[in-house]
Amino acid sequence: VPLNEKSLIARIRRQSTASRRVIQGIGDDCAVLRIPRGHEVLVTTDFSLEGVHFRREWHSPQSVGHRCLTRGLSDIAAMGGKPIAAFLSLALPRSLPQSWVDKFIRGLLSLAKRFDVQLAGGDTAGSPGKILADIIVVGSVPTGKAVLRSGARPGDRIFVSGSLGGSAATVRQMMSGGKLNPLNFTAHFFPQPRIALGSQLREKSIASAMIDVSDGLSTDLTHLCDESGVGAEISADAIPVATVGKVVVNLDLALHGGEDYELLFTARQPVPNRIAGVPLTEIGRVTRKKGIFLISGQRRKRLTAKGFEHLSS
Amino acid sequence: VPLNEKSLIARIRRQSTASRRVIQGIGDDCAVLRIPRGHEVLVTTDFSLEGVHFRREWHSPQSVGHRCLTRGLSDIAAMGGKPIAAFLSLALPRSLPQSWVDKFIRGLLSLAKRFDVQLAGGDTAGSPGKILADIIVVGSVPTGKAVLRSGARPGDRIFVSGSLGGSAATVRQMMSGGKLNPLNFTAHFFPQPRIALGSQLREKSIASAMIDVSDGLSTDLTHLCDESGVGAEISADAIPVATVGKVVVNLDLALHGGEDYELLFTARQPVPNRIAGVPLTEIGRVTRKKGIFLISGQRRKRLTAKGFEHLSS
Repeated sequence: VPLNEKSLIARIRRQSTASRRVIQGIGDDCAVLRIPRGHEVLVTTDFSLEGVHFRREWHSPQSVGHRCLTRGLSDIAAMGGKPIAAFLSLALPRSLPQSWVDKFIRGLLSLAKRFDVQLAGGDTAGSPGKILADIIVVGSVPTGKAVLRSGARPGDRIFVSGSLGGSAATVRQMMSGGKLNPLNFTAHFFPQPRIALGSQLREKSIASAMIDVSDGLSTDLTHLCDESGVGAEISADAIPVATVGKVVVNLDLALHGGEDYELLFTARQPVPNRIAGVPLTEIGRVTRKKGIFLISGQRRKRLTAKGFEHLSS
Repeated sequence: VPLNEKSLIARIRRQSTASRRVIQGIGDDCAVLRIPRGHEVLVTTDFSLEGVHFRREWHSPQSVGHRCLTRGLSDIAAMGGKPIAAFLSLALPRSLPQSWVDKFIRGLLSLAKRFDVQLAGGDTAGSPGKILADIIVVGSVPTGKAVLRSGARPGDRIFVSGSLGGSAATVRQMMSGGKLNPLNFTAHFFPQPRIALGSQLREKSIASAMIDVSDGLSTDLTHLCDESGVGAEISADAIPVATVGKVVVNLDLALHGGEDYELLFTARQPVPNRIAGVPLTEIGRVTRKKGIFLISGQRRKRLTAKGFEHLSS
């Protein structure tokens, strides 16, 4: 069945959660959103491109839809914000079965519903090549309270939520030909954006700076340190390395693998072991001296940001 | 010179207008925007895809950048809103010269500057095929005052700004192999979003419903009528047909050609011939009976929405 744009839009209008903050959703030149009084607006956009962020032979359409929205929600979480509405620009090859699109939308809307996010607009087009999605998420945060990347100060402790490397390890297994049951590898196929955690870290004024781990710890910690004008020392032993498919992930993947969508933040004080049900681990300290160093027993070596290359390797 | 993502982002940070409404631009997980008190937020997203919306052999990079942002600004205009910030998701083939990207950004930022719009974020990726841009524009409008498509009532007069068919006629000329000087065909290469006009039509409570003419008059009037639950009668003689390259455009192109980015609106009363320097033409009336009809002398025939197919024909 060829793609039918009208039926796609009709389905989204019918199935999407209705948020009371969305005054006008799909069906006009713009969406109209109402922001809570005393709040600022958060906006983030993220591509999900076939061959770069997902592969049709590896990822079910539900997983692609879920991960697409997770990318945006995770950015809202990293500011300590609350999401309101999502917008989806979708370019699809003519040969794509309608059922793929249906399941993609279902995966996306099911995650949206959990966070009371309305799919309030977007654009559709034919793609001359592969599937291209661009997700925009709009949220809000009390005025002046967004947790920026630039707030880290020398002496701050560095924390990370959950565990790291699980998503990248799953990609490795697929690359070496493994057939995986997505339900056993949810860190990769159905990652959970840390909205409640991010929100509490802001409300309780715990986080001095925050970023989500989408490109890998080494890269995202570099971003945070660059924007704050500081350096960091982290301890290899302290990194909360993921276990996927009963195997403990290699430290290198935990340091450099992307798409875990955990929160990386700094704090002036010790923090509880768990907030909003998510375990938190202290992994190091912010330093005045620039550069990021990994302490491993007696050794101290420079940690270079190895930008996450998605599926390109 | 291969594309350098860091230098692209650095250039945008350096060159983009700084809007006082943008508290945090590029360089964090989300942009943070401050919305004027008593206002709602407008959001629109639009693709600009190579081969669908533009061709590298026809369009200079400056024109592609200008038109990309015009698509978003025009949607804000059609709500009677004011733009605040733009976000650009850009997927580029590795072979693309850096100079193309520089000029594209220059074209986009130069239009942005004119409307005090900050380029406040986005995403970049390598494209496996052609150039893909997705533009998001965020704006504001006083609470409850957005001009929707759904406000037209039987008896309302129908107006259009400027002239129609100029953009489509230019595409026709290029398709038949004509080499054009873009400066003589600005309706297509450098269209002007009608922000000031849209704003005044709202402030003065003139427009009861509004849409921008991006897909062609027949299609956009159909959208407006569908959302309002009404029909329309328009007069062929009244359509303000464009003149491009000294040639008066064919009526068919004025009725069905897209990308003119004029405003189509309904009003309960007569309106001035010109608002915000833009000529306005009354072209028909809203009817209780559904369907859109074109009156041409004694003939009255049904006008079918011929969805604009961009460059695909």
